[in-house]
Amino acid sequence: MEAVNIGLLGLGTVGGGTITVLKRNMEEISRRAGREIRVIAAAVRDVDKKRDFDTDGIVLTDRIMDVVNHPDIQVIVELIGGDGEVFDAVMTALDNGKHVVTANKALIASKGNAIFSKASEKGLMVGFESAVAGGIPIIKLIREGLSANQIEWLAGIINGTCNFILSQMTEKQREFGEVLREAQELGYAEADPTFDVQGVDAAHKLTILASIAFGIPLRFESVYMQGIDNVEPVDIAFADELGYRMKHVGISRRTDDGIELRVHPALIPKRSLIANVSGVMNAILIQADAVGQSMFYGPGAGSEPTASAVVADLIDVVRAFTTDPQNRVPHLAFQSDSLIDAPILDIVDIETCYYLRMKAVNRPGVMAAISAIFGETGISIDSILQKGHGREDEPVTIILLTQNTREKNLVRALERVEKLDTVRDKVVWIRVEQLS
Amino acid sequence: MEAVNIGLLGLGTVGGGTITVLKRNMEEISRRAGREIRVIAAAVRDVDKKRDFDTDGIVLTDRIMDVVNHPDIQVIVELIGGDGEVFDAVMTALDNGKHVVTANKALIASKGNAIFSKASEKGLMVGFESAVAGGIPIIKLIREGLSANQIEWLAGIINGTCNFILSQMTEKQREFGEVLREAQELGYAEADPTFDVQGVDAAHKLTILASIAFGIPLRFESVYMQGIDNVEPVDIAFADELGYRMKHVGISRRTDDGIELRVHPALIPKRSLIANVSGVMNAILIQADAVGQSMFYGPGAGSEPTASAVVADLIDVVRAFTTDPQNRVPHLAFQSDSLIDAPILDIVDIETCYYLRMKAVNRPGVMAAISAIFGETGISIDSILQKGHGREDEPVTIILLTQNTREKNLVRALERVEKLDTVRDKVVWIRVEQLS
Repeated sequence: MEAVNIGLLGLGTVGGGTITVLKRNMEEISRRAGREIRVIAAAVRDVDKKRDFDTDGIVLTDRIMDVVNHPDIQVIVELIGGDGEVFDAVMTALDNGKHVVTANKALIASKGNAIFSKASEKGLMVGFESAVAGGIPIIKLIREGLSANQIEWLAGIINGTCNFILSQMTEKQREFGEVLREAQELGYAEADPTFDVQGVDAAHKLTILASIAFGIPLRFESVYMQGIDNVEPVDIAFADELGYRMKHVGISRRTDDGIELRVHPALIPKRSLIANVSGVMNAILIQADAVGQSMFYGPGAGSEPTASAVVADLIDVVRAFTTDPQNRVPHLAFQSDSLIDAPILDIVDIETCYYLRMKAVNRPGVMAAISAIFGETGISIDSILQKGHGREDEPVTIILLTQNTREKNLVRALERVEKLDTVRDKVVWIRVEQLS
Repeated sequence: MEAVNIGLLGLGTVGGGTITVLKRNMEEISRRAGREIRVIAAAVRDVDKKRDFDTDGIVLTDRIMDVVNHPDIQVIVELIGGDGEVFDAVMTALDNGKHVVTANKALIASKGNAIFSKASEKGLMVGFESAVAGGIPIIKLIREGLSANQIEWLAGIINGTCNFILSQMTEKQREFGEVLREAQELGYAEADPTFDVQGVDAAHKLTILASIAFGIPLRFESVYMQGIDNVEPVDIAFADELGYRMKHVGISRRTDDGIELRVHPALIPKRSLIANVSGVMNAILIQADAVGQSMFYGPGAGSEPTASAVVADLIDVVRAFTTDPQNRVPHLAFQSDSLIDAPILDIVDIETCYYLRMKAVNRPGVMAAISAIFGETGISIDSILQKGHGREDEPVTIILLTQNTREKNLVRALERVEKLDTVRDKVVWIRVEQLS
């Protein structure tokens, strides 16, 4: 089938990520969407600027409207930001019958009501998954995944810059200003950090989340906003003594009197999972009547994480006009004629680390014999723990953690270890998964 | 618009939850789906059994095929389990042109390939969100939310019974058999716990996750399976010393040689978020090329959490044949003519707890004066921390944690506290969110 043609507005961090992800994963994306997705044009400020990603096959122009009016383009991806001229570009794209995908939280939070009503009138899709919490598909989760529920409240760590700064202030007992400068050097905070540290960015995102959670229009102007610029290390330390951690959160709750919409620093009990979300990561905790509590965690910003959400929106658009409408998303994620009959590994062929517990007689040379076997089978030992102070010839417990090795090597080594006359019983072994 | 008619097969725990959630949230569900969703018939083993949920308006029958062949039913929800006669019922439903929603992981893992090919041939939807990880919309997340990514690996705590037992063994240093009996008494483990504790249930779920993550056919027969019935408390304790926690996990990873598919106990570093998922909760950690790492957490079983996923699938089906196909999911989750202009609460009207830090002169009667003000404004104090051992008339730092109160009360109290001549400077205050 013919490729779907995309036009990008803006080729910054997220634009570059979008192009890179679409190219690198083209094969899988086509298997999922049913058609190839191809960027054919992009509007940029400076056509001649050197870029560190491949723009082959993409026509660059500095005239936004050339892309918005391009007759071969079916979907416009807006990655410029702000809610000024970009609003006109998006409305024109819709007038031209083009679907829109945008990562622009300010635009959606402040002008979404107008954009959606235009899109509905025209029968077009507007995707904005990337506008909230970057790579976490939180819009889809609430809008579709939790659609059976009355949502009672949601609370999110939805600004990575604030979370990074507070995490550093907590771990290193340092002042806000000092950590902010470091965050700026690391690229985790903008040169002008106002939007992030004063809570505006989080308020944009909370506006969108509250709207889809409670079925209310977007109400950015009603969000209570407080930033982290006044947080003092002394309060982080006292809170720690009381069992709490300082986080910058967006909270929206349904009450009998109305909807709470607020962004501010708050103390969260340390035992709660969300209190343990550190650094630039985002997480959203949701309390809903049927499902109870659930939490969704992932990177809230960055080039490829945000591109992940942009491209997911593109695939949603393409699936809607590619597949049978009654069957928009393939059952097994990939189109049924695109499943690959890949081999499944036998368990002895996996590679991981292992925890070993054995009983051995406390006699000189025992450890040397055991170590020799592991050495000969190519298994490196990460740590050793010896338990029990048995007298000579009494059994002691030895715990070993191995480094990564193929399971068949381990099995072979253990067969030999178990044959040693100093080793008693079978060796107990458990796989260790670093999961990172 | 006319209601969509549903037929249920099975009215056990999940069936009851589905009916309860559909009734309780009927109004919001209709606003989201665009049409009312109504259960009109259910096949049960015993028609006369007393049930603790409302079956008004639902025709009960003990003949499955009466529901499957019912001319007015558009969607069959299969909640019986197993992969025997239920397979025939599902295939007949599809032959009859009915969409299918099922919570049956055994059926999908072992016969899904046949079911999906029949559904595709007939242009029908088969929803199975509830088959994996109960209330966590993990199928949708992988299939749609992360569709831009090449998934590298996924690891899940996907059996609540195993996780509950291991959590208890860890916290209380108790034996497997003892904790299993307790779990059975609490209803967290079945009378016949084999499927759960030997890893069969987790293997069914992992089969489905791997298939949608990697685009491979369902391969239940290839899963390596190891349960938790041989886990000993001594290894949990040694692992703890080494910085690890014992979890029962399902892991699937793409390697150059093939796909890993394995379910077994494993040690996970304590610092990792997933190691902190306790009790009957489920979580799935995913490593993908664009988004990096993300984690999805929630209840993996239970009546209403599972019903949440069943009903989400129903709403997906109804949205597909209700709304404009190009615009299947409403932008703001609810149909645009169903948004409600609810009031947004002013920040002074919210209720929460507060952390207060103040400087006061160390003089007899100071605490009494402060406490009196809080008492008069109806604010209860949860805990007090006094820092610094100032001599009399020297300032000390006082930290107070309040119980839940309306913010306007707090503001009023603080105005009075700050006027006390023993209190220096402004009182620093931060909202405390218990988030539970």
